[in-house]
Amino acid sequence: MADPSTNMRLRLGILCIILEVILIILFGTLVEYNEDTDAKHWNENGKHNESQYDNEFYFRYPSFQDVHVMIFVGFGFLMTFLQRYGFSSVGFNFLIAAFSLQWATLMQGFVHGLHHGKIQVGVTSMINADFCTGSVLISFGAVLGKTSPVQLLVMSIFEVTLFAVNEHILIGILKINDAGGSMTIHTFGAYFGLMVTRVLYRPNLDKSKHRNSSVYHSDLFAMIGTIYLWMFWPSFNSAITNYGDPQHRTAMNTYYSLASCTLATFAFSALVSPEGKLDMVHIQNAALAGGVAVGTAGEMMLTPFGSMIVGFLAGTISVLGYKYLTPVLEEKLKIQDTCGIHNLHGMPGVLGAVVGAVTAALASKDVYGDGLHRVFGASQSEGWTPASHGGRQGISLAVTMGMALIGGLITGFILKIPIYGAPPDTHCFEDTLYWEVPGEEEDQYVLAEVSTRNEVEKLNG
Amino acid sequence: MADPSTNMRLRLGILCIILEVILIILFGTLVEYNEDTDAKHWNENGKHNESQYDNEFYFRYPSFQDVHVMIFVGFGFLMTFLQRYGFSSVGFNFLIAAFSLQWATLMQGFVHGLHHGKIQVGVTSMINADFCTGSVLISFGAVLGKTSPVQLLVMSIFEVTLFAVNEHILIGILKINDAGGSMTIHTFGAYFGLMVTRVLYRPNLDKSKHRNSSVYHSDLFAMIGTIYLWMFWPSFNSAITNYGDPQHRTAMNTYYSLASCTLATFAFSALVSPEGKLDMVHIQNAALAGGVAVGTAGEMMLTPFGSMIVGFLAGTISVLGYKYLTPVLEEKLKIQDTCGIHNLHGMPGVLGAVVGAVTAALASKDVYGDGLHRVFGASQSEGWTPASHGGRQGISLAVTMGMALIGGLITGFILKIPIYGAPPDTHCFEDTLYWEVPGEEEDQYVLAEVSTRNEVEKLNG
Amino acid sequence: MADPSTNMRLRLGILCIILEVILIILFGTLVEYNEDTDAKHWNENGKHNESQYDNEFYFRYPSFQDVHVMIFVGFGFLMTFLQRYGFSSVGFNFLIAAFSLQWATLMQGFVHGLHHGKIQVGVTSMINADFCTGSVLISFGAVLGKTSPVQLLVMSIFEVTLFAVNEHILIGILKINDAGGSMTIHTFGAYFGLMVTRVLYRPNLDKSKHRNSSVYHSDLFAMIGTIYLWMFWPSFNSAITNYGDPQHRTAMNTYYSLASCTLATFAFSALVSPEGKLDMVHIQNAALAGGVAVGTAGEMMLTPFGSMIVGFLAGTISVLGYKYLTPVLEEKLKIQDTCGIHNLHGMPGVLGAVVGAVTAALASKDVYGDGLHRVFGASQSEGWTPASHGGRQGISLAVTMGMALIGGLITGFILKIPIYGAPPDTHCFEDTLYWEVPGEEEDQYVLAEVSTRNEVEKLNG
Repeated sequence: MADPSTNMRLRLGILCIILEVILIILFGTLVEYNEDTDAKHWNENGKHNESQYDNEFYFRYPSFQDVHVMIFVGFGFLMTFLQRYGFSSVGFNFLIAAFSLQWATLMQGFVHGLHHGKIQVGVTSMINADFCTGSVLISFGAVLGKTSPVQLLVMSIFEVTLFAVNEHILIGILKINDAGGSMTIHTFGAYFGLMVTRVLYRPNLDKSKHRNSSVYHSDLFAMIGTIYLWMFWPSFNSAITNYGDPQHRTAMNTYYSLASCTLATFAFSALVSPEGKLDMVHIQNAALAGGVAVGTAGEMMLTPFGSMIVGFLAGTISVLGYKYLTPVLEEKLKIQDTCGIHNLHGMPGVLGAVVGAVTAALASKDVYGDGLHRVFGASQSEGWTPASHGGRQGISLAVTMGMALIGGLITGFILKIPIYGAPPDTHCFEDTLYWEVPGEEEDQYVLAEVSTRNEVEKLNG
Repeated sequence: MADPSTNMRLRLGILCIILEVILIILFGTLVEYNEDTDAKHWNENGKHNESQYDNEFYFRYPSFQDVHVMIFVGFGFLMTFLQRYGFSSVGFNFLIAAFSLQWATLMQGFVHGLHHGKIQVGVTSMINADFCTGSVLISFGAVLGKTSPVQLLVMSIFEVTLFAVNEHILIGILKINDAGGSMTIHTFGAYFGLMVTRVLYRPNLDKSKHRNSSVYHSDLFAMIGTIYLWMFWPSFNSAITNYGDPQHRTAMNTYYSLASCTLATFAFSALVSPEGKLDMVHIQNAALAGGVAVGTAGEMMLTPFGSMIVGFLAGTISVLGYKYLTPVLEEKLKIQDTCGIHNLHGMPGVLGAVVGAVTAALASKDVYGDGLHRVFGASQSEGWTPASHGGRQGISLAVTMGMALIGGLITGFILKIPIYGAPPDTHCFEDTLYWEVPGEEEDQYVLAEVSTRNEVEKLNG
Repeated sequence: MADPSTNMRLRLGILCIILEVILIILFGTLVEYNEDTDAKHWNENGKHNESQYDNEFYFRYPSFQDVHVMIFVGFGFLMTFLQRYGFSSVGFNFLIAAFSLQWATLMQGFVHGLHHGKIQVGVTSMINADFCTGSVLISFGAVLGKTSPVQLLVMSIFEVTLFAVNEHILIGILKINDAGGSMTIHTFGAYFGLMVTRVLYRPNLDKSKHRNSSVYHSDLFAMIGTIYLWMFWPSFNSAITNYGDPQHRTAMNTYYSLASCTLATFAFSALVSPEGKLDMVHIQNAALAGGVAVGTAGEMMLTPFGSMIVGFLAGTISVLGYKYLTPVLEEKLKIQDTCGIHNLHGMPGVLGAVVGAVTAALASKDVYGDGLHRVFGASQSEGWTPASHGGRQGISLAVTMGMALIGGLITGFILKIPIYGAPPDTHCFEDTLYWEVPGEEEDQYVLAEVSTRNEVEKLNG
């Protein structure tokens, strides 16, 4: 199976080296430690002699590690559900995440504004880079099994760049709230990926249909991904909120939203099954929609009550999407969405954006007290009213959708150029194309057993 | 296999929706943010302007996340050891945990006392809710493979309620120490579950005997659960202790107890095997007993030395329990304990309660100094003597046993009503009853190989 | 397969009990709580009444937990890649880690100096004990599959002791920097293990060759280990650095080094394959070399730029080592290195030591400002110059190599005594020797299917 058309030797080898060399040069030129990571600045005038606790490291690093687990274990294992694509799911996830987080550091630093010509880095930039990477991995879910690692790296280059631009428009210019990224991460990543997979439409994908499904153990590996995403989502949504009550509140709102979402997921997974059996696809994915849907409003005074309602709705639309919408998207709109990211990130992301806009519009000094400006910080300085802020939240959703769809369209066409070693229609969802895959010892055992048995039977007559 | 008697469509679908709607209504009526999660209260008078570090979030949230991992990954994967019950183990664990943590927030808040008619929530209530959930999951271990998800949810409703009552009697009224829950969580969960499984006794369970065991890979999945429980147990026991030295000390005592327990487990697993081979069941379970057994005394001045002795004893009785007691319990007392929770949570929980009572009775100003009231806080206010405190610790164990056994008895009979779609004796420990289970691709590969081989042999022969 | 020569009943059972009893006695005699874990000392004079945040627990415990995950899940699962050695990989890892961390607490405390005749313990000693354990687990990787658990425990006894001595020479006497242990942990563990496996050379190991490889699912389990090691390495390298900017900077440098290393790993894994296919062995191991290689310099002002260069080099030499050097080591030098620790820990460790020496030699007040003494603390007090510090860093590498090689040599000969129940050449890399291994249900399913099919064919034929 050493097909030259999918041989990765030079394609992937050279591309990775070129990309990393460019990254290293740009980091050497542009990146410097920020105040909290630089030995000189942090210790200037002995200002932290009494306590080192002001260092943002202690406020952010535990959240960062949880986010990091979501990016590498969560996304990576969630996609191992395919029966013969586990190496690629975890492995390519690893590759494009390792690339994207470096590229994102540069793009986000560059777009959001340099400090005296330099990009300053610290734990917050690490979290933001991981966030941007998350968006790329969402898009990866749509094209899973149908793309070469080279295509995925090229997609990452463009998606990270556009992510940074879109994020800057929302956070830097429109000054809206989206700490958990319902819009910037989930909506953007989902519609970008859906557009890419639309452009890469394969009419003959059913030639690989028998591999586009799970086996028993691959579903259990995928559950590792699901559970880690579910558990650490409170950290994801709260990782870059303001310190104190906003961070605390965001984590808790997300916790309740997810719990409620999980019950909705089990409920509707049973209800949509004529045999009354639960579907692993729903549990693995829809139960997470509650985290997506409070990505914007989570830091606001949404209340546990509100969070649970949002989570319930998110789980419901997500299961219904998997059951009824995904087949339609594939048949009518020719969108082949391997992981169903439209149901997990797309619709719940839009729901989250709407919930965020409404919750922001309803904010009041009465409810937030002096905490108002700590949640809606940027807005205060500009003579903010809740209604206008809510409006700008809505505009942000539209901007994000536009950026994602146009960006995905262009990127899709770039990925369609037949030079990247994409898999043929007959070998999608198959690790052996890009990986040395070991034989199955179990099979050999069984075959040995079987032939022994056959011989015994022959002897017996 | 779409048997109407076990069809979950309406049973589970409707029940989940009803439960979640009730939860949402009660949360809307009763629950509000506490001081540390409310924007208005936290920022009142600018009292935290200088540092946000006082927020309990920074003291508790990392521990919470570790506990969360234990609940969802630890318990969930520990139970995947069964060969054809992995979906149910992780999946039902996920469902009943997501339900229980919401229900526990309400029950614990309600029983422990409302603030102006409201339940106030924050990271500490999240940890407590997870703790209560842990107790339910312990009971789940006893009935694993023999119950429908509907039964499990009904069990959770009752067990959470009784847990909250028992916990309030111990912590709120008797004012004893049990930060890691040797009594409230482990003893309660174990004896509650054992009583439930006793009432649900199935005389013909051996019809499913061939499925009530592990296969190679399922044992590896279970080890994921074991290792996560083992690693994060120091966080579990220290999650809600007082800040500073008690939290630090508890984590360390637990660390040493578990290390010692692990050596005892390997020792006795080898010693009780005539062939001198280690048994995965022991390693997966008994190595954790050291965490259970310092759940009460861990925050006290138990010393690493004392912790290691306790851990060693816990591992020893747990392995011996698996080897010699479990078969007796099943044959003589008709207690079918799938996971052996009596050995992992029952006996070590009782040991932990006794160790806690003795350690409390031996406490002195000489050893604890001004830290005495920070460990035995509630007691101080009531003219505490060590001996009386030790006595009350003992009484608490008796109360817990009583509550668990009576509660389990009643709940067992409620679960026995034949309306919940329980599995028939012939289909216990089997995922296909409640889940869409994918085929095994490996089998197809092998079958194809075998028939090819047979054809070749025919041609040759 | 109950061969008396490998029967572990008395050998392992008695050894574990003796070791744990000795540990308990020594802990009872020598170990006491430190200032931050002792109730009396911590609360003396009410000095922490205002804030409990000074407790080192809050600075170190999250890092400790990440390190703990690396030791038990990271190392444990990384070694499950072998097809029939998963129980032993995770299980023996668990056993020797649980032993080593207790023994290391004693040895490190003893060698580094007693306080009034006592070893004081707290979260920092827990991290240091885990670090020492990591070194033992690295050596375990070299002899994986070829040793009995008794041999592994005996190896741990010696290796932990020598580790503590070497660490004390470096940190206590030469006063050099090695917070992430490029030298003390990785170089030491690697060359110690390589020497042990050299002495234990088996000329007839090819009798077990068919088991010395992976299968599809075992590679996925191994990826769990890889990814956890990769994600938490920033916590590993920063766990015991000084508070504030050094801890923050170390984590970030490691993050960038690993990301860069990952791209180098994918690049060279593709480039060295004639078929242009990626090799799981490289991805599982070489992608981690970037963490090893900044273990010394990570806390210094290495800059992200420098870290990425180091990571790139580490990934490159590691892949090339797996491809070209490992076969040579086995053939020419008779070093059978199961996991290829020379490529993951040996060479990158040496690289890390060299990078550390150079970075230290280049340190200046100009770059570090008042932070200089906080990174190179011990040296300041002794009239430090960068060049001399760099020199001492270099000497430390030589000392470490010497200690490792001589220690490994002696330990190897001790392990060669034929009393430990080592596996015969025909049964290396095989769990059934030391574990009760369950049958494979899938096989039974398939066999049943096959015989049915055969019968049908007979009827038809």
